[in-house]
Amino acid sequence: MTQTFSYEQLFHFVYQVFLKMGCSESHAKLATKVLLSADMRGVDSHGVARLSGYVRLWKAKRINAASYIKIVYETPSTAVVDGDAGLGLVVAPFAMQAAIEKAKKVGTGWVAVKNSNHFGIAGYHAMMALEQNMIGIAMTNASALVAPTFSIERMLGTNPIAVAIPAHHEPPFVADFATTTASNGKLEILQRKNEEAPLGWVQDANGQSTTNANALKEGGAMLPLGGDREHGSHKGYALGSIVDIFSAVLSGASYGPWAPPFPAYVPIPQDMPGEGLGHFFGAMRADAFRPLEDFQGNMDNWIKRFRLAKPASGFEKVLIPGDIERETEIIRKKEGIPLFDSVVEDLKEVGEKMGVELLTPG
Amino acid sequence: MTQTFSYEQLFHFVYQVFLKMGCSESHAKLATKVLLSADMRGVDSHGVARLSGYVRLWKAKRINAASYIKIVYETPSTAVVDGDAGLGLVVAPFAMQAAIEKAKKVGTGWVAVKNSNHFGIAGYHAMMALEQNMIGIAMTNASALVAPTFSIERMLGTNPIAVAIPAHHEPPFVADFATTTASNGKLEILQRKNEEAPLGWVQDANGQSTTNANALKEGGAMLPLGGDREHGSHKGYALGSIVDIFSAVLSGASYGPWAPPFPAYVPIPQDMPGEGLGHFFGAMRADAFRPLEDFQGNMDNWIKRFRLAKPASGFEKVLIPGDIERETEIIRKKEGIPLFDSVVEDLKEVGEKMGVELLTPG
Repeated sequence: MTQTFSYEQLFHFVYQVFLKMGCSESHAKLATKVLLSADMRGVDSHGVARLSGYVRLWKAKRINAASYIKIVYETPSTAVVDGDAGLGLVVAPFAMQAAIEKAKKVGTGWVAVKNSNHFGIAGYHAMMALEQNMIGIAMTNASALVAPTFSIERMLGTNPIAVAIPAHHEPPFVADFATTTASNGKLEILQRKNEEAPLGWVQDANGQSTTNANALKEGGAMLPLGGDREHGSHKGYALGSIVDIFSAVLSGASYGPWAPPFPAYVPIPQDMPGEGLGHFFGAMRADAFRPLEDFQGNMDNWIKRFRLAKPASGFEKVLIPGDIERETEIIRKKEGIPLFDSVVEDLKEVGEKMGVELLTPG
Repeated sequence: MTQTFSYEQLFHFVYQVFLKMGCSESHAKLATKVLLSADMRGVDSHGVARLSGYVRLWKAKRINAASYIKIVYETPSTAVVDGDAGLGLVVAPFAMQAAIEKAKKVGTGWVAVKNSNHFGIAGYHAMMALEQNMIGIAMTNASALVAPTFSIERMLGTNPIAVAIPAHHEPPFVADFATTTASNGKLEILQRKNEEAPLGWVQDANGQSTTNANALKEGGAMLPLGGDREHGSHKGYALGSIVDIFSAVLSGASYGPWAPPFPAYVPIPQDMPGEGLGHFFGAMRADAFRPLEDFQGNMDNWIKRFRLAKPASGFEKVLIPGDIERETEIIRKKEGIPLFDSVVEDLKEVGEKMGVELLTPG
């Protein structure tokens, strides 16, 4: 069912693939690191399982491997970055770094990005701020799969938000979530296993909530966080919209139903109102608000207090956002990264196309 | 059941009450304007229905009517405001204005507030940015009523987020929502009517989702947006936590289960780790990212396109966040503000205590 690879094995393979695409060494290294951070943190849908998708986008000339990424507009606390149709995996860290540099100077930095592509896991970029004792924020728009409340039309992506907050002795708070009831990755797992989805994840072509995990292939749509109006789906719809507007309207990227689709076989929408996919990043220096040690002390205390919240019966403890991913990373560093056979086959195919050998375990 | 008051009638009454509390004329005027904006926008739970609660907090010496609100820490793009235990209704606009002034200079402004109280509707403060062609963001922590996923302990408030985004010809996008499945105001309506709540709004003392709208009085808790783990309650919990940390840990206010309770009869938590309630505000100049007309044009187009999204059968159209509140405001400007008899009685009682006459309609 699964084969377990070491980080180094996968790193070597992915790095070579990006080099073959025409990335510079530094871009290839960075893209590999960002992509594999998803596998390490257990967000398997956004790691090497997506490599073949990136390669297909590159073959379709929608990804420019030799991108020249630059700031095209700025103020002391803001910037817009043009990703030059590059890999989001390298455009995003460039933009987040720009936000961090601005925060160093004026307290906070906010960078919107246009003309980019899928950027991997949002959490990686938000977490870049942690080493600087800054709060990091990352979000992106994405292919339209989600219907607004009261609608049957796919207008928004799963538009994730990540927020990383440093502590001192405690590990950081790292939230990273799609603004839908469930991520597309989780839905794909049910599709592969031919299992039903809980009500509230997807709706059918008529707008009825359905347990059919394949409803999207039959004209359905994913549902905003909340699931239905009675349970607050208008809030999930608002959140997804805010991500879309910050990422794409502020930057000049293509928004809403015009967001460029990830699957290379889906045609690019007609009359795109902007350039490529959009992201939005923020960095806030903790000591732009109070002395660092005061912030850190309170943050440690916040985390410790929430860990001690009384668990409901049947549950061991309350989790802090980021706990599961951090624990997965510790395990995978030791034991390696398990990949489904289907993912391994997919990687081998990529390897054959690109002339790179996948060293299999053992 | 209801009596309808003109805006002016209510304004006069509330203004006099705030004056009697010892507010300056300008503070009383501003507090009245902010409070009544909730009634005008149809957020009845946060308007004059709360006046008696503010008066009780003032009597309990938890609200300082003669507050001296000031910036106590700052960088070019950030500040912390000390609300001097004042009415949140005046502390919040002071802080939001500070964010706007910073944005004028360096592109964005971010202000965390400590030592404050309940600030009315978040939407009012976020919308202050609109006149300046800025995006406005407002959030606040609040009395702990919400249990994190897997917990039975009330650790967070309903911690709302408001985001206001200007357009040009189209009305602005204004999202304003609690990070719980349903707001406490909606729950209180069911309690008054002795009706059941949908599953997913509240849980009982054992952590089981229940339709008992009174479960909170019996040791239960409100549920984060999502309702349960399968439907993404860990995302609502993360959102509520982010609001709590931005509002209270960044500023030095009291966070999590230690947030000061709104009902004056509930004792203040022991060993509060910070001062009073916390808020967080942001202002981002649209033209800190692109020329204003480009942003406005795309924003108009975004709103128009979403309005045209295919409605599900049985629904007339897709709403843009803020539509309902704006339409309510237009109607109430013409027709007045309907108040439940119980709210009118409550106001009369406030009037008697404070020596202010409530002029009833007709």
